[in-house]
Order: sequence, then structure tokens, then C-alpha cells
Amino acid sequence: MACFYPEFSQKFAALLPELRAHGRVAIVGHMRPDGDCIGAQVGLARVLSAAGVREVTCLNADHVPRRLSFLTAQTRVLHAPEFLGNPDSDFRAGDYAAIFVDCADAARCGVELQTAFPKPFAMVDHHLSNPGFATHDFLDANSAATSEILAGIFLDLGLPIDEQTAQALYTGIVTDTGQFRFPSTTPRCFAIAGELIARGAQPAEIGYELYERESLGRLRLLEAFLKTLRLECSGRFCFGFLPKGIFEATGSTVEDTEGLVDYARSIEGVEIAALVEERVEAEWRGGGVKMKASLRAKNPIYRVDKIAAKFGGGGHACAAGLTAEADREAFCAELLAAVAEQLARVEASGGATNSEETIL
Amino acid sequence: MACFYPEFSQKFAALLPELRAHGRVAIVGHMRPDGDCIGAQVGLARVLSAAGVREVTCLNADHVPRRLSFLTAQTRVLHAPEFLGNPDSDFRAGDYAAIFVDCADAARCGVELQTAFPKPFAMVDHHLSNPGFATHDFLDANSAATSEILAGIFLDLGLPIDEQTAQALYTGIVTDTGQFRFPSTTPRCFAIAGELIARGAQPAEIGYELYERESLGRLRLLEAFLKTLRLECSGRFCFGFLPKGIFEATGSTVEDTEGLVDYARSIEGVEIAALVEERVEAEWRGGGVKMKASLRAKNPIYRVDKIAAKFGGGGHACAAGLTAEADREAFCAELLAAVAEQLARVEASGGATNSEETIL
Ligand SMILES: [Mn+2]
Ligand SMILES: [Mn+2]
Repeated sequence: MACFYPEFSQKFAALLPELRAHGRVAIVGHMRPDGDCIGAQVGLARVLSAAGVREVTCLNADHVPRRLSFLTAQTRVLHAPEFLGNPDSDFRAGDYAAIFVDCADAARCGVELQTAFPKPFAMVDHHLSNPGFATHDFLDANSAATSEILAGIFLDLGLPIDEQTAQALYTGIVTDTGQFRFPSTTPRCFAIAGELIARGAQPAEIGYELYERESLGRLRLLEAFLKTLRLECSGRFCFGFLPKGIFEATGSTVEDTEGLVDYARSIEGVEIAALVEERVEAEWRGGGVKMKASLRAKNPIYRVDKIAAKFGGGGHACAAGLTAEADREAFCAELLAAVAEQLARVEASGGATNSEETIL
Repeated sequence: MACFYPEFSQKFAALLPELRAHGRVAIVGHMRPDGDCIGAQVGLARVLSAAGVREVTCLNADHVPRRLSFLTAQTRVLHAPEFLGNPDSDFRAGDYAAIFVDCADAARCGVELQTAFPKPFAMVDHHLSNPGFATHDFLDANSAATSEILAGIFLDLGLPIDEQTAQALYTGIVTDTGQFRFPSTTPRCFAIAGELIARGAQPAEIGYELYERESLGRLRLLEAFLKTLRLECSGRFCFGFLPKGIFEATGSTVEDTEGLVDYARSIEGVEIAALVEERVEAEWRGGGVKMKASLRAKNPIYRVDKIAAKFGGGGHACAAGLTAEADREAFCAELLAAVAEQLARVEASGGATNSEETIL
């Protein structure tokens, strides 16, 4: 028997009978769901169903992105705003034991879902900044993906992983490791990926769905983003900007911003990168224009989650995000100052000298 | 004991004493070497040395690209034009048993090396179009990379794979599989990658070297390339163009073209993609302006190696290349016609209907 997460597996096995007895489980993901979020939701839902939980429902505040829709053909992920608080809906949140996945904190699922599930039964996550918020926390910041944790537990316990489940969990690992190359990638990622392939995950099919179904609009958005790249802090900080209206102008959507910031990060000498987006929020989120920033670091010593926290955001040491109500000029200046300060602080603490150790 | 390539491993084991007795081996790669080429050269050189071959020399017509230089710190890959045919050099090609790696045919190493080694002792390759050209051929078109074949043989035979060797061979696999996602990716790739990691390959370090040391010039080149993308053949063919002088204009180099064509290929609905480059050849290659095209297909049924062959080029079913002496307008028209013809032929043969099977 595999032994990827001995402690979590024991704990999960102990909770299964409770979930079976309860009969109804809601699996909640985060806003603007990514591959790890959808992969973890679909994978967990299928395994719980196969393990005898009567009703399992996946719920998100935002729609499943087009490129991830191949995972939800057989296991639906519902768009919560359509029926939460809808008087015609017979969905009663109180009937469900909620499991939050891939959410750095309870608020990451969006205000409606957070209100519907004020006390989650469990959460499974790998974000460094996660304070713990459920009755049963499965939190491991040394894992590359929430899907890795779930796959490891399922393999440890010999729970039934069918082809669709393997595809979903593999997708979570491949997206959150940047195709097996972010510093979070460990031998365990490969071992689990190998087990998932043996159970029907198809790397080439997943690669095709994730990376070979681009729109021309997305490439035009990339072109526009590249044009705005600026190097600051002696070439150690690179950031690019997406102004209001850019999606209409390029024929792209907000989904298409995923991964753009990695171009800024990829430049030699750059330690921290940012994508700043001037975003018009949906009305049910308060409307108005907000500044949204995605931060990335090459090396975890730069702790971009701490920079994000200054603006009320959060995330991982190498990948974090934030939203601010500020105008463009003021926000960019503030962000630049916060990044410069963080670079200086790390340098002063001598962190950069052992970067070799922590980057890998 | 592992058993990845039973036939090749037996054959390789039988040749080892011969190479040891001969004492001098030259490992020859192809022009404009990629990760698989350098990875295979370095990996093979280190294993042969460790296995008791007295002198092993790696030789290429072109320099090692900047992003691959991390592989050659301890195992040098020589730039052949500097001493082949140089009267001051004491290198005598005739003293060496030559092993060609990752070369689709003998000419792919460039005219000087081909002349120096008219009858290669062995070759190791995975190109579909390879006709076989050495005394001992190790050719398997079902392998994703030449480095995969070599790693498999070394593992089968229990030959010593140290950290540097593991890094080199892993790099070959990761680059030729597009980070484990091209259709050529098999469970064997993962199994071998896992073995290489167990022997010291560092996915994150390799990912950093390969993909996180971009220059701003390379991103400007990408921006320029994206601007030229054109959809043809009802959106099934996408091509982009790099005019003469673009490297100077963007602060990039010819090395930076690697991977650009994949952006054209990544668009939904596109079956075949091309990057056409107007290139001024070095004098020792005849000088003058040439048209160079890199072709890619999403699905091997489209056999872009056959399109390339019409222009005297070659390669794999999904990735091929060619060089032509023609002016821009005439060449682009000819290429477009050849692609349209190939798309029509595959459609007529019903090939597109079973694409599900062959794409994965
Ligand atoms: Mn995640
Ligand atoms: Mn190759």
C-alpha cells in the first residue's frame, strides 16, 4: 500500500463513515477556479460518491473556465449564484456537510458561499497563508497542489480512482506545478502522477485541453501585455498592465489572463513579477473599478504572500494575489514601493545568499 | 532490473567492449542543437567515460544555446568549426568512432561534421523520417526523445548515472515532450523521469534554467511574432513570420526563435502551424538569404515531415523543418499550397475521423 500522507489518510478514513451517514456533501472551491480547484473538486466528488456518499454537489462562485470544461462533462460543478438565495431553488445549504478545497481562507469561495456554509466540515488545501478554518483541516503547505494531497490520500487508502478521477487530479497537479517545474515540484508529484497515469490519466489529452485550445484573442491579449512590461528595481521587478477595456479590444476574456504574469517572471534577473489588472467588477460583487494584482516570485524567500497581505490579499510564498480599491497611478506606486521594500528586506537579512538552497 | 529497451540494451552492451578497445569516441549532434541533442550528448559522454572509454569528445556545428549551458559546465561540447579542418588543431576525426545522436539523417550534423565522419559507428535517434545511416542504428520513433532511449538503455544495463548525467537526460525528455504533454509522452517517459530524479535530476532547477532565464529581447521577439500570425485554410493553418533584421530590432538572437511556433499551433482549431524565418546564413554555410520554416501539427495524422520533405526538409510527424532558397512571397505561397494539399489529403483519406485515437 502506498504511503504518501500517513496522517491525513488515517484522519480521512475516520471521517468517511461520518460523511456516509450524513449523506449530503457540498464541495466548495475558490473564486476564479483554476485547474487545481476544479481537479480537486471533481476528484473528491467522484471518490466520495464511489465510496458511498449519497449526494455530492460541487459549487463555485464563478463558472468553470472553458479550458477546464473537459473535466466536468461527467461530474458537474454548479454555478452557485444561480440558485443560492434563489427562492425557486430547493437547495438548502444547511443540509450539507461542506468541504472547502484549494481555498487559502474561508473568504476565497466568495461571500455568498461563505455565508451559506459558515462552518465548513473540512478543508483540504496547500496555501502557506491558510490559517485553518474548518472542523477538520487537511492543510499541507509542502504539497504542490490540493489535488496532490487528495490523490495521495486516495492512493494510500486504496479508494477507487477511475479514469475521470485520475484525469481531474492529474490536471490539478500539472497546472499547480507549472507542468512539473515550479519549486514546489517534488519526487512525490512524479510518483503520484505515475500512479494516476496507471489509472487512466492521459497527459497528452490533458495537455491538449489545457494548452492547445487557445483563442486568437488570448494571443492578442498576450501581445498587449508584453508591450506593457516594465523592469523596475534594477531589473529585479517586472510588471505589466491590463487596462480597462482590454478584453473587448483583443477579443479575449478575463479567463485569458491566467499565466500572463509568468512571462514577466520568466525574465533573467527578475525576482518578483506582477500582473496588474484594472477590472470592472460584476454588480453582485459591488461593481466599480478595482485594481487586481497577481504576484509571482522565482524564489520562496521573497514571500510575495507577505506583499499581498499588505493590501489585504494572500497566497503562497511564490504566488499570491490581491484586490484593491485605488486608482491606477496610486496603486502602481504603492505596489512598487512594497516590492522594493520586500526586496531590500530579504537582501538585508542575507536571504539572497542562500537562494540556491531554497529556489529548488 | 529495469527493462525499458530490451533489444537496444543487449545490442549496446555488446558494443561497449568494442568502444572501450577503440578508446576514442566522438559524439555528434545536430545543427542548432536543442535540449534533447545536448542532453543526449552529455549523458552518453558521461556514461561512456564512466564505463571506461578513454576519450570521449562531443562535437556540434553550432554553439550550445545559452539556456542549455548549465548542462555543459562539467562535460564540454565543442564547437566543431573552430578546429575541424584547422591546420593548427591536432584533432584527427579518423581516430574516433563516431556516434550520432538526435540526427534525423547524417546531414543534420552539418556538412563539415558529415565530411569528417563519413561512416558513423552508431546512431541513436527517434525521428520518424530517419532512414538509418550508421553501422549500428538505435532508432525508435516511438520514443519521445533520444535522451529517453539512452536513459532507458543505461537504466536497463545498470550503467552509472550520476547527478549531471541524470540532469542532462531529464532535460532531453522534458524539452522533447514539451514538459510531458506532447502526444509522444508515454508512461515510460514518467517512469524514466522518476528514475532520473531518484538519481539526482532536479526538475525545478532544470525548469528554471530552461524557462525562467528569458531575455526581454526574447519577449519582444515573441510580441513581434504574435503580431504577424495569420489564420489560413479556414482556421486550420496558422503561420507567423520573422523578417530579416528582426533579431537586431528586438534585441534577440536566432536561439530565441525556439518554441515560437508553438504559439501558432496552440490556437483552437489549428491543425498545422508554421514559423517562417527570413534568415541570413553564415558565410561558411553559403551566405545569402534563405527561408527557413518550422512546421508543427497537433495530430500525427497530418505528417508535417511529408510537407517538409517536399522542400528537402524532414523531421517527425508532428514537428518538422526545412530550408529553402526562394523569395518570401513565392515561398509562403508554395508552403500554403503544400499545407492546404496535405490537409485535404488527410481529410479525403478519412484520417480526421479517427483523430481521437492518434492524437493521444
Ligand atoms: Mn492549488
Ligand atoms: Mn530529439
